[in-house]
Amino acid sequence: MERYRFLMSGSGGQGVITMAIILAEAAVIYEGRTAIQSQSYGPEARGGATRSDVIVADGPIFFPKVLHPNCLVALTSEASNKYLHLIRPGGLFLYDSDLVQFDVRVDMRRKGLPMHRAVMETLGKPQTFNICVLGALAVLTEAVTLESLEKVLMTRFAEVHHKNNRTALQLGADMAAALVEN
Amino acid sequence: MERYRFLMSGSGGQGVITMAIILAEAAVIYEGRTAIQSQSYGPEARGGATRSDVIVADGPIFFPKVLHPNCLVALTSEASNKYLHLIRPGGLFLYDSDLVQFDVRVDMRRKGLPMHRAVMETLGKPQTFNICVLGALAVLTEAVTLESLEKVLMTRFAEVHHKNNRTALQLGADMAAALVEN
Repeated sequence: MERYRFLMSGSGGQGVITMAIILAEAAVIYEGRTAIQSQSYGPEARGGATRSDVIVADGPIFFPKVLHPNCLVALTSEASNKYLHLIRPGGLFLYDSDLVQFDVRVDMRRKGLPMHRAVMETLGKPQTFNICVLGALAVLTEAVTLESLEKVLMTRFAEVHHKNNRTALQLGADMAAALVEN
Repeated sequence: MERYRFLMSGSGGQGVITMAIILAEAAVIYEGRTAIQSQSYGPEARGGATRSDVIVADGPIFFPKVLHPNCLVALTSEASNKYLHLIRPGGLFLYDSDLVQFDVRVDMRRKGLPMHRAVMETLGKPQTFNICVLGALAVLTEAVTLESLEKVLMTRFAEVHHKNNRTALQLGADMAAALVEN
């Protein structure tokens, strides 16, 4: 498998760190891979921006920071403006097409999906937005499967959240699948 | 300030990762420091053990992994057995004195506190055990203050949890303070 270097970014409260931890756990516990997940906090943490890195690999990982992601996730324009220049040539850029505006032209695979809006329209509240993003990532990358993500969600969260988590995960997967087919 | 290299360890469900994230955020957002917090997942993640690293410094952090902690936290015997040999000479070892048994003799500052039992006796449920450990760490190290931890707790958690979080934090701080005085 390709080595995945995810840089996940957004604002505080969007669940960016939780999303990164779930992805790493799913890849390791249910798919037998190696992963490292980290948060670097510098002065920018005081501005409300959130960044979390995940590396998923088939072998040992020696340097745990992501300098140039081959998969960048941005959930706000601020995050996109800050990190888009770091993306590797041909890398995947997954962003929320309502929350993120950008006009940078770089060599990448752009995948904009109205994930936040879909979650609000389907579930009426934004708490599972990050889970919806994970569903899209499972379809758009080979880093992890939908089934492994679902297993982690069922283990980590109380039963009262299972139904909405499943719905949000499938919502993201379906949106990404539609995009891939078109 | 001394550079703190925390290795936090325990079992899944004890809130080890959350504890690490709260510590890092408190140090960065409210005390103007730099921090990096990470989880390495290898084969051991499939066994239910949890490890999370935090480095807190006054300047830039170049290598984000903790190889030899100067502050080791262990909340199970399994975790202690696994990581105690990594501690730096003279390092702080904070452990739960009921949950952790060990008979290794190394050059360290041992601080065993019955934190889990205190939380159960005071609050009747174990969910804030990790918060109690943070309260003890605030007293035993200079990495972070009790006030900064409390600010993060008030921001990150819903209001319904505030009272118990404050109680658990103070419980850990009081136990550690009693230990320091003796």
